[in-house]
Amino acid sequence: MKKGHQVTMKEIAKKLGVSVSTVSRALKDSPELHPDTKKRIVEMAESMNYQYNLLAQSLRISKTKVLGVIVPELTSHFFSSNISGIQDTASKRGYNVMICQSNESFEQEKANLRTLVAAQVDGLLISLSRETKSYEHLHNLYEREIPFMMFDRVTEEIPVSKVTVDDAHGAYLVVDHLLKEGCKRVAYVSGQEDLYISKKRKEGYLKALLDNGKSLEDAIIYVTDLTSKGNEEVALKILSDSNRPDGVFCMIDPVAIDVMLVFKENGIRVPGQIALAGFTNNPTSGVIEPSLTTVSQPGYEMGVIAANHLLDQLDDLVSTEPQSFVLQTTLIPRNSTKKTSL
Amino acid sequence: MKKGHQVTMKEIAKKLGVSVSTVSRALKDSPELHPDTKKRIVEMAESMNYQYNLLAQSLRISKTKVLGVIVPELTSHFFSSNISGIQDTASKRGYNVMICQSNESFEQEKANLRTLVAAQVDGLLISLSRETKSYEHLHNLYEREIPFMMFDRVTEEIPVSKVTVDDAHGAYLVVDHLLKEGCKRVAYVSGQEDLYISKKRKEGYLKALLDNGKSLEDAIIYVTDLTSKGNEEVALKILSDSNRPDGVFCMIDPVAIDVMLVFKENGIRVPGQIALAGFTNNPTSGVIEPSLTTVSQPGYEMGVIAANHLLDQLDDLVSTEPQSFVLQTTLIPRNSTKKTSL
Repeated sequence: MKKGHQVTMKEIAKKLGVSVSTVSRALKDSPELHPDTKKRIVEMAESMNYQYNLLAQSLRISKTKVLGVIVPELTSHFFSSNISGIQDTASKRGYNVMICQSNESFEQEKANLRTLVAAQVDGLLISLSRETKSYEHLHNLYEREIPFMMFDRVTEEIPVSKVTVDDAHGAYLVVDHLLKEGCKRVAYVSGQEDLYISKKRKEGYLKALLDNGKSLEDAIIYVTDLTSKGNEEVALKILSDSNRPDGVFCMIDPVAIDVMLVFKENGIRVPGQIALAGFTNNPTSGVIEPSLTTVSQPGYEMGVIAANHLLDQLDDLVSTEPQSFVLQTTLIPRNSTKKTSL
Repeated sequence: MKKGHQVTMKEIAKKLGVSVSTVSRALKDSPELHPDTKKRIVEMAESMNYQYNLLAQSLRISKTKVLGVIVPELTSHFFSSNISGIQDTASKRGYNVMICQSNESFEQEKANLRTLVAAQVDGLLISLSRETKSYEHLHNLYEREIPFMMFDRVTEEIPVSKVTVDDAHGAYLVVDHLLKEGCKRVAYVSGQEDLYISKKRKEGYLKALLDNGKSLEDAIIYVTDLTSKGNEEVALKILSDSNRPDGVFCMIDPVAIDVMLVFKENGIRVPGQIALAGFTNNPTSGVIEPSLTTVSQPGYEMGVIAANHLLDQLDDLVSTEPQSFVLQTTLIPRNSTKKTSL
C-alpha cells in the first residue's frame, strides 16, 4: 500500500464482508439500513481512518443536471440510436446530455472520461472502445464515487449496472433460420476473434448448429478485420472454397452488405446459390436487393433503460446495487434467405 | 436601455466606427494594433464606464482544452462526418470535444449552449436547429466573448466565422446533369419551404433550368415534410400527375430513396421512365438498385476546417475577424440517371 494511501469504501466493505453500496449507504446515513449495520460500518470506517470524499460529496450536492456519455463511434447507427434514447429520457427528466466519442481508442476514452468528470457531470453512461483491455480508469471513477453505468460494450470487472443485448441468442435465431430455410452448410463471418461480440455471436452460431443436428466439425468460420477490403477478401475466399457454404451469417450488417456486393458481381444468386444474413438492422439492409435478413437490436430502448436506471440511482429511487439488464433481439427475415419459396 | 445595463464592446465599436475584434484586441493590449488606435479605444471604453468581463477573462486563462459542439442530430451521416472531422482535428491539437445534440429543437439548443458554457469549454462550434429563428442566445454568447463559430446551418445575424457548403451550386450540378441526360421535365422535391437548404437548392434548380433553355414556368416543385410518409405521398402525387415529370431531383438522399421505393413498387422503371437524383451521398445511395445519382458534400472536411479555424483563433494565430468558408460539392453520377445508355 502506498504511503499517504486513502482508505476506500471498497476496503471497508471487504473487511466487513458487505457490499460497497451498503458501506456507501451507511456512510450517507441512509434510512434503508438497520441501525446496527450502520453503526458497525461507521465504527469500522472510523477505526480505519476513512476520509469522506468531500469533493465528491460537494459535486453531488451542487448538481449540474448533466449526464456524460462516452461511445466508441457516432457514425454507427446502433450507437446513435442509443444516444437518441438516452437524450429523450434525460430531457424528460430535466437533464441535459454531453457526448464524447472514443473513436475506438483507449487513450481517447481516458481523455473523454477526464473531460466529462472535469465538466462535473452528475453521472456517466459508458460504452467501451475496442482497444480497452484494462480498467484502471473505471476503477478510479468507481473509487471516486462518481455514479456511472455501462452499456453494450461492458466489462464484468467493475461492479456497476450494465445494459447489454443477448448477442448469443440473436446469432442463434438467425443461424437457426438459415438452417430451417434449407441451408446445408452455414458459415460464420466473424470480426476479430478477441472482440466480445465476435465470441458471443460465435456461441449462438455453434449452439444453433448443434440444436439442428450438426456437430462442431460442421462449423465454418471466416475472420475479417471489418474493413471493406477485409470483407471483400473473405467474400472471394468463400466463393473459391472447394466445399462452398450455401448459407452465410455475417457478424454485422456492413460485412453482409460488402459480401453481398461481391457475390452479385461474381454472378452468384442470393439467396438461390448462397443465402446471406447479417446482424444489427442498419437502414441500408432494408433497401438493398435482395433485402437482407438480419437481427434487430433495441438500440433506442437500450439508451432509455440505461438513462432511466442511472437517473433513478441519482435520485435515490433505486439502490446503487449493480443490476444487469439483458435485452432481447428480434429476427427480421427478408429476401436474402428466402430459399424455400424459390 | 435597461437599468444597470453593462456597456458592451459592440457599443464601443459602434461609437468609434471600428470592428468589435479591434476593440477586443485593444482592451487585451494586443501588440497588433497601432498604439494610437489602442489609446483611442481604451479612452472611449473608460469614458463609457466599460466593465471588463473578469469572469470571461479568467475562464479564458484557465483553459480546459475542450471544444463544445452543438449539432441538430447525430443519426444523420452528414453531421456525424462533421463531428469526425472536428474530433480528429481537435485531438491532433491536444483538445478534446464534447458534443450536444439539439434534436432540431430551439429550446434544446439553448439548453445545450448553457450546458457547454457551464462546462467551461474554450470555444464552440454550432450548427443551428430547424426551429431556430431568433438568435438572442447567440448574441449573448458573442457579448460574453466566448469564442465560437458556426457550420452548415448558420445565420448571417451574428458576426462570427462560418463554414458552409455551396448548396445552390450542388443542386445546379445535379439538375444540369438530369437535363443533359435527356430529361424533358425535371421536378424538384423540396423540404419545408422556409428551410435554408430548401431555398438554396431551389435556387440552383431554377438556375439550371434557365441555363438549359427552360423558363421559370417549367419549374415543377413538390413539397414534403421530410417524413417517410410525406415522401411517399409526394411520390404517389408525382405518378398521378397528368403531365408527369421524367426526371426528379430530391432535396436529400433519404427522400430520393423513399421515392424510388414507391416508383419501383408501382412498376415504374428508374431511370427508364423517370430518372431520379438526390443530394448528400448517404451510404445507402451507393448500394440501392439502381444506384442513386447524388451530390457529395465534404462533411468531414467541413469539420476539419471549422475546428482548425476556431483553434487558430483561440491560439491567436489568426484574428477574430469573421471569415466565411464556402466549400464545393461534387456530382456523383450513378445508374438512377443513366438515360443515355438505355
